[in-house]
Amino acid sequence: MTMEFATPYRSRSQIPPAPGTPYFIEKGMGDRAHLFGDLFTVYAGGEQTENTFNFFTCEGPKGDLIPAHSHPDTYEVFFITAGAVRLFVEDIEGRQYEKLLTTGDFGFVPKNCPHSYRIERHHSQIVGVAAGPGGTFERFFENLGTPTEELGLPQRPHVPAPEKFGTVPQRFDVAFLLDHQWRTR
Amino acid sequence: MTMEFATPYRSRSQIPPAPGTPYFIEKGMGDRAHLFGDLFTVYAGGEQTENTFNFFTCEGPKGDLIPAHSHPDTYEVFFITAGAVRLFVEDIEGRQYEKLLTTGDFGFVPKNCPHSYRIERHHSQIVGVAAGPGGTFERFFENLGTPTEELGLPQRPHVPAPEKFGTVPQRFDVAFLLDHQWRTR
Repeated sequence: MTMEFATPYRSRSQIPPAPGTPYFIEKGMGDRAHLFGDLFTVYAGGEQTENTFNFFTCEGPKGDLIPAHSHPDTYEVFFITAGAVRLFVEDIEGRQYEKLLTTGDFGFVPKNCPHSYRIERHHSQIVGVAAGPGGTFERFFENLGTPTEELGLPQRPHVPAPEKFGTVPQRFDVAFLLDHQWRTR
Repeated sequence: MTMEFATPYRSRSQIPPAPGTPYFIEKGMGDRAHLFGDLFTVYAGGEQTENTFNFFTCEGPKGDLIPAHSHPDTYEVFFITAGAVRLFVEDIEGRQYEKLLTTGDFGFVPKNCPHSYRIERHHSQIVGVAAGPGGTFERFFENLGTPTEELGLPQRPHVPAPEKFGTVPQRFDVAFLLDHQWRTR
């Protein structure tokens, strides 16, 4: 039996809305969203953890560099469970780092550090935790993108309406850095 | 080039002790500890996240049920990246749940909920996040167990000295429940 709940985010979710409830979610069955070519799946968010942390996955095809951005109040983990992801990070003194991460590799992006990534193999998966003293932002993906009941990658890229870029990122501690340049190569 | 640091926990660690520093850690190269038959590897801890979350892995052979315990102030994620792990959880009203988790499956244990698990396949790996409003407890494993430079599972089980059970768990928000019974089967 699979438990399903109505939550503030989904009419059918496997994440219990009441905090303090143990739960299990089978592979792929968290709260799903499409954003550009990628599938984001939330397994736990702020409501479950007194706003201390969240837990989500990002799956995508080999693709383009995600635009550089930073999180003023959020630390972010990239842990690769399949494929290969090139992570770019700049520290607060402007030094830039780049690393190709493959299965089992880990990357850590502190708050305020500009970063970007590029999925470099089809069927890659990133496990993410993104949280800080100000809370968690796991609902960014479905607000800039769109919630979905589908289980796989978007059949065609979901491109957000332009006006969303003016409001959604700020609400979820995301600052896009449109003129940012990576000088690592 | 791999960066190494002296930290409060290791003379050689790939986790930068100064907060706010981006870093990468290749598979298996986090701060490692042996506890009973298992290998715990910390990739990020409280110092890196203003005490909001941590990130570690647990790898083990097929083995026995871990003694039931709870965390008065810590929420815990079990995300399986290899093998199979049977997770037992009791909610605060005493209802008990049991689920066999395999690769890609997720389990969530709220604070104060008794829980236990048993690794049911050799070469299993659990990704863990364990944190709450009171902080993180990633150094529990090396304090009850022992830090190691080795890369694999313990060659023989590391059994903690008995007196450690009287002091270490309390320091890391771990309450063992020695008389606890699972009635799920």
